[in-house]
Amino acid sequence: MNIMDENITETDIEALERKPFLVATTSSSAIMTNKLNFRKYFVIAALTVLTSSQAIFIVWSKRAGKYEYSVITANFSVEALKCVLSLVALFKIWRRDGITQDNKLSTSFDEVILYPIPAMLYLIKNLLQYYIFAYVDAPAYQILKNLNIISTGVLYRLFLKKNLSAIQWAAFILLCAGCTTAQLDTSSDRALQTPLQGWIMAIVMALLSGFAGVYTEAIIKKRPSRNINVQNFWLYIFGMIFNLGAIFIQDFDDVFSNGFFHGYSFIIVCMILNHALSGIAVSMVMKYADNIVKVYSTSVAMLLTAILLKFLFGFHLSLSFLLGFTVVSVSIYLHRAGSSSK
Amino acid sequence: MNIMDENITETDIEALERKPFLVATTSSSAIMTNKLNFRKYFVIAALTVLTSSQAIFIVWSKRAGKYEYSVITANFSVEALKCVLSLVALFKIWRRDGITQDNKLSTSFDEVILYPIPAMLYLIKNLLQYYIFAYVDAPAYQILKNLNIISTGVLYRLFLKKNLSAIQWAAFILLCAGCTTAQLDTSSDRALQTPLQGWIMAIVMALLSGFAGVYTEAIIKKRPSRNINVQNFWLYIFGMIFNLGAIFIQDFDDVFSNGFFHGYSFIIVCMILNHALSGIAVSMVMKYADNIVKVYSTSVAMLLTAILLKFLFGFHLSLSFLLGFTVVSVSIYLHRAGSSSK
Repeated sequence: MNIMDENITETDIEALERKPFLVATTSSSAIMTNKLNFRKYFVIAALTVLTSSQAIFIVWSKRAGKYEYSVITANFSVEALKCVLSLVALFKIWRRDGITQDNKLSTSFDEVILYPIPAMLYLIKNLLQYYIFAYVDAPAYQILKNLNIISTGVLYRLFLKKNLSAIQWAAFILLCAGCTTAQLDTSSDRALQTPLQGWIMAIVMALLSGFAGVYTEAIIKKRPSRNINVQNFWLYIFGMIFNLGAIFIQDFDDVFSNGFFHGYSFIIVCMILNHALSGIAVSMVMKYADNIVKVYSTSVAMLLTAILLKFLFGFHLSLSFLLGFTVVSVSIYLHRAGSSSK
Repeated sequence: MNIMDENITETDIEALERKPFLVATTSSSAIMTNKLNFRKYFVIAALTVLTSSQAIFIVWSKRAGKYEYSVITANFSVEALKCVLSLVALFKIWRRDGITQDNKLSTSFDEVILYPIPAMLYLIKNLLQYYIFAYVDAPAYQILKNLNIISTGVLYRLFLKKNLSAIQWAAFILLCAGCTTAQLDTSSDRALQTPLQGWIMAIVMALLSGFAGVYTEAIIKKRPSRNINVQNFWLYIFGMIFNLGAIFIQDFDDVFSNGFFHGYSFIIVCMILNHALSGIAVSMVMKYADNIVKVYSTSVAMLLTAILLKFLFGFHLSLSFLLGFTVVSVSIYLHRAGSSSK
């Protein structure tokens, strides 16, 4: 039960960035490319490390005792924290560069109207999550979640009109198969007994989540010169609004009687911070790379987590994990090798 | 407990073949290429079907009751039957074409001296098989046998000096991972607890088996114009001799008191016939294709077997099987796609 699957922004890391889309003169273009590449790999690495540590925090909090906080208020807190971090980054940029067309917070209706959609899609997906457990148990759900990989690839191709080479498609199928293999355990076969309703819901959830990701990439990339912190600010504002709605619908009595921050502990605060930073990293990966890179990063993070957990808590690595790890590694190699033969 | 892992020859199928290495005139070369391609795909299909049905016979014979025959005399019978089939094919060819340099049975010492080596390597491997079970149980051994795939690839590269492209190497690693994944069950993790001695023996066995395969390909291809039935005849003669030796060393008392064919039933005779024909198909794949194709055929056969068993005996297909099947399918695609970008 992680507090939020996928989310979106940008932070102090942005301080590294000086006016990202300079009209580069021929002499400075190589330095510029290096800088852009460095930033791209930095955010990919950050996303991988942050996603890996998410699961560590979850296991750690479970060992410390049961969850006694409201998951929905935690989701709201994550959105609020991301919003604050975006604003902090923006203040720094304004002080340094002044307010420009690209970094001003105010926006046109035409621009802002697109931003509520990802938050809405995630909310629908999170609501569906409550109902899918009527048909599917938790281990089977973990397995079915790998459908996200395929849905992201297909929607990425359809809506962003970018081609993957045949080798890269093969690599993407392997990524999905490898991640699933790495997660196999004795109860995984139950995923195959999922009834039709469960399959439909799982596929709809995968499509919602894939579509939200692809849609976010589309709006973030629509105006490349636009400062990512402004884009994130608007994404997170709507994230806060939709999560507030969810609190009123689902958890109002509980939150009203126990208080908003009831049950928050040091570890929960760490988890919220971690989720906020991962959300920001996801958003930056969308800006400077793409959804395919995001899927690869989070998949690698899943494998790194398993290895870290082994060292931290003595979990054992199964043969299926090693096989999945091998398949995912080959997939990453093929993704890169396939880009040249496109 | 299959009666013999890998073996070697050629049969009446050879009747399809008219003088394989004609000096083709320009006008007939296309027809010739088609004919050679047809023969190649025919032997690959035959190998796949025969290997698939092997496991079906084994399961069928198990359900009919315990094995009560001597496995070593069955191995000898397989070699003898292959030898007889090679001779039958040769008689037909002699009657049709007369005796030529390429189809005469007599041979030079220099040519024949190479032929005992594969039979010897298989025998050492089969003897090691008795000892490895002191360190490894049967399900773990099934898993470790997939090391054969890697050893064949490496030895093929080293000794036959043929290049695989980087994509094809990736495909080969996937083939090994996919086959292992398809075979995973609840007891597979024990393979990871194999002690060092077990690993060493498994690796030595994989190398012996891989080397025997690559060596056989080398001697069969050394003289391309040489009739495959003659080459097989000499391979199987030594196979018979070494298996006869094994009967004397290991099973003599039992065979002497109960008789050579003790416990043979209709199903055992079918199994021996099947093994003989598969052996011949392996040998033809070595002649007209190569060890890499052989490994792919037998891997696909393993998957087909599992699907057939499901329909015949109601075995269930697990999630790990489906994942392994997916990875192997992608591997086959990549093997073909990789050959163009070599």
